[in-house]
Amino acid sequence: MIILGVDPGTVITGYGLLEHSGNKFKLLEYGTICSMKTDEGAVRLNQIYTGMINLIEKFKPDHIAIEELFFNKNVKTALEVGQARGVLMLAAYQKGVQIHEYTPLQVKQAVVGYGRAEKKQVQFMVKAILNIPEIPRPDDAADALALAICHGHSFYSQLARRDFL
Amino acid sequence: MIILGVDPGTVITGYGLLEHSGNKFKLLEYGTICSMKTDEGAVRLNQIYTGMINLIEKFKPDHIAIEELFFNKNVKTALEVGQARGVLMLAAYQKGVQIHEYTPLQVKQAVVGYGRAEKKQVQFMVKAILNIPEIPRPDDAADALALAICHGHSFYSQLARRDFL
Repeated sequence: MIILGVDPGTVITGYGLLEHSGNKFKLLEYGTICSMKTDEGAVRLNQIYTGMINLIEKFKPDHIAIEELFFNKNVKTALEVGQARGVLMLAAYQKGVQIHEYTPLQVKQAVVGYGRAEKKQVQFMVKAILNIPEIPRPDDAADALALAICHGHSFYSQLARRDFL
Repeated sequence: MIILGVDPGTVITGYGLLEHSGNKFKLLEYGTICSMKTDEGAVRLNQIYTGMINLIEKFKPDHIAIEELFFNKNVKTALEVGQARGVLMLAAYQKGVQIHEYTPLQVKQAVVGYGRAEKKQVQFMVKAILNIPEIPRPDDAADALALAICHGHSFYSQLARRDFL
């Protein structure tokens, strides 16, 4: 199964692609969908949407894991991240890819085994689990890979919140 | 010029279509794009996106007026409204329609002449300006018509914040 993890943002959206089989992960690709900060809102949203469509068409993921609504940031940030998240989910839906949402707590529990783990611990475990020489950069890409790992674990251990097995 | 006013929401998105010429407004249509509350997030976002595409294809608006980011609601609402707003803006961009954003303050000033006007006063003025027998229902549609009126006024009086004349 190919899993695409996505960490939505207004300027940088991180992504990470893993192949998951027999409880092993293989790193396929990671990076960022960037939108130009100087462009207008709708242009940026179209860059994010198009970037996501291109990723799905290129790698044909079976599932997408995306960060759940979060409530710890300010209202302006939430609205802007919401817009980016909206077009990412639309792209996934239009391409027929299942979407699964995870909270930061769930990601930390799945990757580190501890819901209050620090960002650095999560990144260290991403490197260890994927058996790669360096921690993926930028943070957005590492977060996206953590989401993909979380989904892989949850899916097979039937801990996923939705009843699809 | 045909103006489509849009008031984004997670369950109900209000819209209002006006023809504006020689500083007169003619009501073309108003209503709501509804998404099913029971459906999943991505399905709902696709309903909103598709509804917007259909409206644009049917009425071919020259400009779209949408409510500016607002900061007075809670973070959860902001994220959800952001998602809806994101796919609405994407639809407008993909159909090549100019998007103009107005704050509630600007709408009240343009429609009632007073930035702290009550919702009822705005609705009364929408009815009066459009010369229609009843206040449009639901509120989301009336708000969308107020946005369209605001844009019509702003555009012609060159009060629009963007330099497009």
